[in-house]
Amino acid sequence: MTERPLLHEVGLRDGLQMEKQTVPTEQKLAWIRSLCDAGVDVLQVGSFVHPVKVPQMADTDQLFRELNAPGRRRGNVTLSALVLNEKGLERGMACGVEMFCMGVSASETHSRKNTGMGVAEATERIIAMAQEAMRAGKSVQVSVQSAFGCGYEGRIAPEQVIGIVQRYLDAGLTTISLADTAGHAMPDQVERLFGEIAARGSGVELACHFHNTYGTAIANCYAAMRAGVRSFESSVAGLGGCPFTRIAGGNAATEDLVHMLQHMGLRRDIRLGGLIEVAADVARYFNREMNGVVYRTGPIAEPSSSTGA
Amino acid sequence: MTERPLLHEVGLRDGLQMEKQTVPTEQKLAWIRSLCDAGVDVLQVGSFVHPVKVPQMADTDQLFRELNAPGRRRGNVTLSALVLNEKGLERGMACGVEMFCMGVSASETHSRKNTGMGVAEATERIIAMAQEAMRAGKSVQVSVQSAFGCGYEGRIAPEQVIGIVQRYLDAGLTTISLADTAGHAMPDQVERLFGEIAARGSGVELACHFHNTYGTAIANCYAAMRAGVRSFESSVAGLGGCPFTRIAGGNAATEDLVHMLQHMGLRRDIRLGGLIEVAADVARYFNREMNGVVYRTGPIAEPSSSTGA
Repeated sequence: MTERPLLHEVGLRDGLQMEKQTVPTEQKLAWIRSLCDAGVDVLQVGSFVHPVKVPQMADTDQLFRELNAPGRRRGNVTLSALVLNEKGLERGMACGVEMFCMGVSASETHSRKNTGMGVAEATERIIAMAQEAMRAGKSVQVSVQSAFGCGYEGRIAPEQVIGIVQRYLDAGLTTISLADTAGHAMPDQVERLFGEIAARGSGVELACHFHNTYGTAIANCYAAMRAGVRSFESSVAGLGGCPFTRIAGGNAATEDLVHMLQHMGLRRDIRLGGLIEVAADVARYFNREMNGVVYRTGPIAEPSSSTGA
Repeated sequence: MTERPLLHEVGLRDGLQMEKQTVPTEQKLAWIRSLCDAGVDVLQVGSFVHPVKVPQMADTDQLFRELNAPGRRRGNVTLSALVLNEKGLERGMACGVEMFCMGVSASETHSRKNTGMGVAEATERIIAMAQEAMRAGKSVQVSVQSAFGCGYEGRIAPEQVIGIVQRYLDAGLTTISLADTAGHAMPDQVERLFGEIAARGSGVELACHFHNTYGTAIANCYAAMRAGVRSFESSVAGLGGCPFTRIAGGNAATEDLVHMLQHMGLRRDIRLGGLIEVAADVARYFNREMNGVVYRTGPIAEPSSSTGA
């Protein structure tokens, strides 16, 4: 069982890229600062993609420059970014990304739709990029997307995922995330697959990323904890989903996950109230009910008085 | 790990008692027939309470008479009812209830608000009623409500729950449900508490009942499965909640639970499509979005074509 789960907030990237409206840089900065103040461990600021393709992410370089300006940092948060190609890596190096996230899909169809490359080719390219980032002294997390199922292909064989993971391990890449891009993951499968990978490499540090399309994201986080996964990617208010899969559902909601963790006696250092405030603000901004639950109900209340009886 | 989870549909009782509008008997019957056709194992038709207190349940006797009329039964479903007192037991005996559900709250405050009795007194009374039903040849399930936390008292000591369970076991009552009335349960706690009880009695048959107030109901179902719980109480569309707790959230949604189970390779005999149809119909009837997820997204789609690659 994971003793100290790490929170990797990805709403600014995996969430906002799904939204029709582009959020102004100042608004993003306000949410980022509040999330840092609340005490997440890693915060994904954005991705480096072509601004015509994903205009919502066009200000990622600017966000990093603002956040890296002297006197602007908050707390001990590591700032991460998703990179899809060498051009993105170059941009990320130039503006001070601390942790590079990059990955391949375990699904041939998803991989080709997303990148124009098959899985094998994409894997070698990602490994080369990851090694370049590591040589530059950066933290690197490599991922396998559609690791638990694919909107196009359905079931993904665990061997396919483990094959990619083994290539990563052989290349010296030990921080590895499995992403449930389409939301197909079931908790027993999560325990089994992470368990098999954990048994493979000493020193491997596992991360997970679950979408709540079919209502299993929090159950999958619990299953991942049971398998010793260290880092949990989630989105404030449950923002998000993948625009390249047929059905897109939000991510595990950060505040729902933290609420559960704290009632399991873990990560009491995170300011849940701060996360709930951001989630409520996100809901106000987009003027709709978000996928998260706890920002609506509030956390479990402390009893207001002694009970007598 | 539970090998063949049983589904106990409680939406007609725990769900409809929360609704402002009273659902006509004919509409209830239509939903009950469809749920029976879908293949749930046990269906809770209603409760026997004073019709002035809970008018939504006033037709429970009539529903049983309709369902027990010659030629009207569907499938192999066991019809259950909740009884709160001796008068209810008498009514249930008269109209052909097959399985009596009854219980006490582990929270003194909740118990007194709900029944006017403290926990110890309520437990003895329930045991006497349960034994009477068993002598009449009925199936009986006894429960501990607020077993994982209470809206009034907060945390409930596991010893308090185990004490009640031990009284049940000593009295020969071995089908035991723990209910998370206020939605406070966390999956680690669920595994621990059910695990401790399972270790106590050979022949004990465990059931669970989770509310999704804080987004953990499905995670708690998975945790309960890990602890060997046999029977799962849930509500179609996620209907429900307890009117006597301060914050009321819906139950685990039957169709979400079955969707997960089937993708874990379990209970493929249940017609998920039928459950989803009822959930969608319930949402249309109440003209609002329900708590269930899968009735909105649809189940995980089979890939429509071979992938080529």
